[in-house]
Amino acid sequence: MSTPQTQSLAYEVGALTELPKFPLNQWYVAGFSWELKDKPVGRTLLSHPVVLFRTADGQVAALEDRCCHRALPLSHGSLEEQGVRCGYHGLLFDGKGQCLEVPGQAKIPAKAKVPAYHVKERDQIIWIWFGSTDQQEPAIEPPAYDIHTKGEYLFEGDVYHYDAPYQLIHDNLLDLSHLGYVHLHTIGGNAKIHMNAQMRVESDEATVKVTRHLPDSVPPPTYTAAYPFHGKVDRWQEIEFQVTHLRIWTGAADANTVSLDDPQRGGFHMRGFHGVTPETQTTSHYFWTIASNPKSNSKEVMAKVVEQTAMTFDEDKVVIEAQYRNMLEFGPKPMVDIHVDVGANRARRIIEQLRQASR
Amino acid sequence: MSTPQTQSLAYEVGALTELPKFPLNQWYVAGFSWELKDKPVGRTLLSHPVVLFRTADGQVAALEDRCCHRALPLSHGSLEEQGVRCGYHGLLFDGKGQCLEVPGQAKIPAKAKVPAYHVKERDQIIWIWFGSTDQQEPAIEPPAYDIHTKGEYLFEGDVYHYDAPYQLIHDNLLDLSHLGYVHLHTIGGNAKIHMNAQMRVESDEATVKVTRHLPDSVPPPTYTAAYPFHGKVDRWQEIEFQVTHLRIWTGAADANTVSLDDPQRGGFHMRGFHGVTPETQTTSHYFWTIASNPKSNSKEVMAKVVEQTAMTFDEDKVVIEAQYRNMLEFGPKPMVDIHVDVGANRARRIIEQLRQASR
Amino acid sequence: MSTPQTQSLAYEVGALTELPKFPLNQWYVAGFSWELKDKPVGRTLLSHPVVLFRTADGQVAALEDRCCHRALPLSHGSLEEQGVRCGYHGLLFDGKGQCLEVPGQAKIPAKAKVPAYHVKERDQIIWIWFGSTDQQEPAIEPPAYDIHTKGEYLFEGDVYHYDAPYQLIHDNLLDLSHLGYVHLHTIGGNAKIHMNAQMRVESDEATVKVTRHLPDSVPPPTYTAAYPFHGKVDRWQEIEFQVTHLRIWTGAADANTVSLDDPQRGGFHMRGFHGVTPETQTTSHYFWTIASNPKSNSKEVMAKVVEQTAMTFDEDKVVIEAQYRNMLEFGPKPMVDIHVDVGANRARRIIEQLRQASR
Repeated sequence: MSTPQTQSLAYEVGALTELPKFPLNQWYVAGFSWELKDKPVGRTLLSHPVVLFRTADGQVAALEDRCCHRALPLSHGSLEEQGVRCGYHGLLFDGKGQCLEVPGQAKIPAKAKVPAYHVKERDQIIWIWFGSTDQQEPAIEPPAYDIHTKGEYLFEGDVYHYDAPYQLIHDNLLDLSHLGYVHLHTIGGNAKIHMNAQMRVESDEATVKVTRHLPDSVPPPTYTAAYPFHGKVDRWQEIEFQVTHLRIWTGAADANTVSLDDPQRGGFHMRGFHGVTPETQTTSHYFWTIASNPKSNSKEVMAKVVEQTAMTFDEDKVVIEAQYRNMLEFGPKPMVDIHVDVGANRARRIIEQLRQASR
Repeated sequence: MSTPQTQSLAYEVGALTELPKFPLNQWYVAGFSWELKDKPVGRTLLSHPVVLFRTADGQVAALEDRCCHRALPLSHGSLEEQGVRCGYHGLLFDGKGQCLEVPGQAKIPAKAKVPAYHVKERDQIIWIWFGSTDQQEPAIEPPAYDIHTKGEYLFEGDVYHYDAPYQLIHDNLLDLSHLGYVHLHTIGGNAKIHMNAQMRVESDEATVKVTRHLPDSVPPPTYTAAYPFHGKVDRWQEIEFQVTHLRIWTGAADANTVSLDDPQRGGFHMRGFHGVTPETQTTSHYFWTIASNPKSNSKEVMAKVVEQTAMTFDEDKVVIEAQYRNMLEFGPKPMVDIHVDVGANRARRIIEQLRQASR
Repeated sequence: MSTPQTQSLAYEVGALTELPKFPLNQWYVAGFSWELKDKPVGRTLLSHPVVLFRTADGQVAALEDRCCHRALPLSHGSLEEQGVRCGYHGLLFDGKGQCLEVPGQAKIPAKAKVPAYHVKERDQIIWIWFGSTDQQEPAIEPPAYDIHTKGEYLFEGDVYHYDAPYQLIHDNLLDLSHLGYVHLHTIGGNAKIHMNAQMRVESDEATVKVTRHLPDSVPPPTYTAAYPFHGKVDRWQEIEFQVTHLRIWTGAADANTVSLDDPQRGGFHMRGFHGVTPETQTTSHYFWTIASNPKSNSKEVMAKVVEQTAMTFDEDKVVIEAQYRNMLEFGPKPMVDIHVDVGANRARRIIEQLRQASR
């Protein structure tokens, strides 16, 4: 007979072991295509240490980052035509994790295998699938992102590491009202304008979209340097949250020349890709690119756009990591919501539901 | 029916949760007046993260260092006339912790408040009150320290951080016999003279006073550079321990010209203020000033006095942190007392009694 | 009545508290003779913080690294003719741990003693005895190592610290097949040759010997620079594991001029001493020397040999520490054995048996 107390305890223990920490059955960003060159890349993703590499045929592979012989990370090894060779005793593994060679030994032990992950490369992004027990095989293709490939835009990007849980990065990206305070010295500009912009939040069971319009406003310096505006502009910010990444489209056109709801509208565009992948429960990878269509001095302007974007993300990192350290310091404690939190709160509900569903 | 074992366990658990780690109902040093300028100062005091700042009317304020919106430390924010503005989404708080503005939102949520602490500024020292549940309001004024203000002395100071519990700093300051071993290269001089000095220890329920006299001795170089002595001197060391700080008065006068018990005696004086405030149970803040009355080359001599004092405290920090690491390494293990420990042991009894009393 | 579950738990708890973590009743390497000069040396050995020093009569002493007064490490103190003086309040201890002086106090408290360890210096190596409760006194003399003293060889050495448990260093030294992968750029040379060398493994209850012969092979550059070979050589590697250290003898002679089984054989010799002493359960000290008998440009060649040896050990340290971090990351997980693991696995069985026996 189990008393209520026993049941409660069993429930707690069950919760700890059974509920995944992150939504599963999703394609997460593991890296960018240009990262996989002549060396294996070691990266912990959703608490799984993974080694990423490209085989001679150009295919991307992802294995558990641990040689099955003596546990050295395979990312300490070297690439050969057939796969990755361990940097300790030289065992060679192919892209599926099968051991192809044990130096000095004719027979390869049957157990000499390393687990492999499903990875796909699409539009310069490496995606990795983390499935629940019921759904180890990807059910869908990874998302397209033709901003990287269709040629309309120039782009660059980078990978940042955060000592903070991934959802704090979602919160930050879904609420651009912080621009006026955190990014005073870069893209911020006047705080009140950002805070008072018209905001629309739409969402369904897997996405949130926050739209903010700043009609008839003075274009910021980066914009005028990039694009031949004729005076005031209609500006927009569109933030689209999906479970594993966000797309942020900001830009401006000469005032009253375009409809801010027209998806084909012209003007000056900045398109951000933001892959936010948990490294562990308390740390994250942030994979970003920024794409743009400067009409004037495109090389210079683009360099400026990338530089300012990187500075902005540096500032965010300082704030978010300080925020997280303070959350740890104070422990669980209520927070007061304000109007700008609507989008971020919806995203948190989506994550929680998907996490529960992938139990 | 509870067995003895159960009772013992309950007691332990009770002790952990109920007994404060530090004596409460005391004014602790939070900082020095000159620290509060154009930026908020974040500092953890008695395990409470606090932001200190000065409002436009010159008043000192201390708030919980956590914005009630998304938990960013307010010490990452900026000062305005009315208070401190959070560096993430721009909420503005006054010196009492009331939110005055939520950018872009007309109505301020009723819960938008941050807890405030009682602070007072007196004689260039910022004091903060930590009270027990029964005594949240300060029962007394913070201590005076007119050495900083009456003009007889020049002084300078600094704030040191220790990776060691605060009582190890008390021990160090209450027993100047370590001068001959730790401070060989600065103020130490002959070890045997220090060890063999006459010592008197007096104490009551809240203070300890250790007095040491070194009559008819050769003045050390710093003394002769500072003051026109005529030959041998009568030296003294008076250490006064109070729960949250110590005052150490050392000095010398021409031999047989003053009474070493006369509080108004002349000669060369060095007056140290030592605020020792727990940061956490295992780390500390050490707020010190050194004041003096050099008669010769006062600027040069004073610079030398401050330099030597700082070097001395650097040496103490090395020793005390090494001592604490070793205590952690060895765990609870008996210590052997010697004659110089009398003052420090009494101070420990006072702390323990006040800690018990502030339960 | 105890259920099987209760018994199992009792066993686990018993194991944790009663079974020593390392084989006891052994002489472990504590340091090299040349380390003990004018300052005490603090070093944690088998989880015991120890201070090592030499007294005026040249004897080596080892005490618990904690002053019995206020717990400062004695290794922060200074050496005097009679022993070590604490750097805080000046207590003086002799090589047996007896307090000889409490400054400023006539009577030495009866409890003013510091535990002492058995240490012996032999052939430039300082050995320390860690005994079980039943065998506090050393039962045997520490090992001889006349390579350091008989004059046939020049040698140098160093002390490395590892963030990895000591048995991973044994594994590494007992299997030189990693030379072709880890030490590609130093002593490695052709990986396949190393992997395919003839290997013989012999062992008894306390030692393992791995012998590898590479007959009729081209001497590597360091060898030809050191020694006037006439063409191809017969090379050997002999690895002798004992519980607390390994001896590795590698070398070569002109092909077919010596028997590779003759212990007195000539040719070019490199003799490595490898003291591997646990610092804690997860960290280690690695005390190594390399001795050689260059016939040409002995000073230059010897400098080269030492430099290459140090580079090699630097590479091993990187690999072994990465291996250990990965083992922590993945937790307990089976490993697949290959042919080169025979020697290392036998050494692990010896350690485990001796650990059990020293309970």
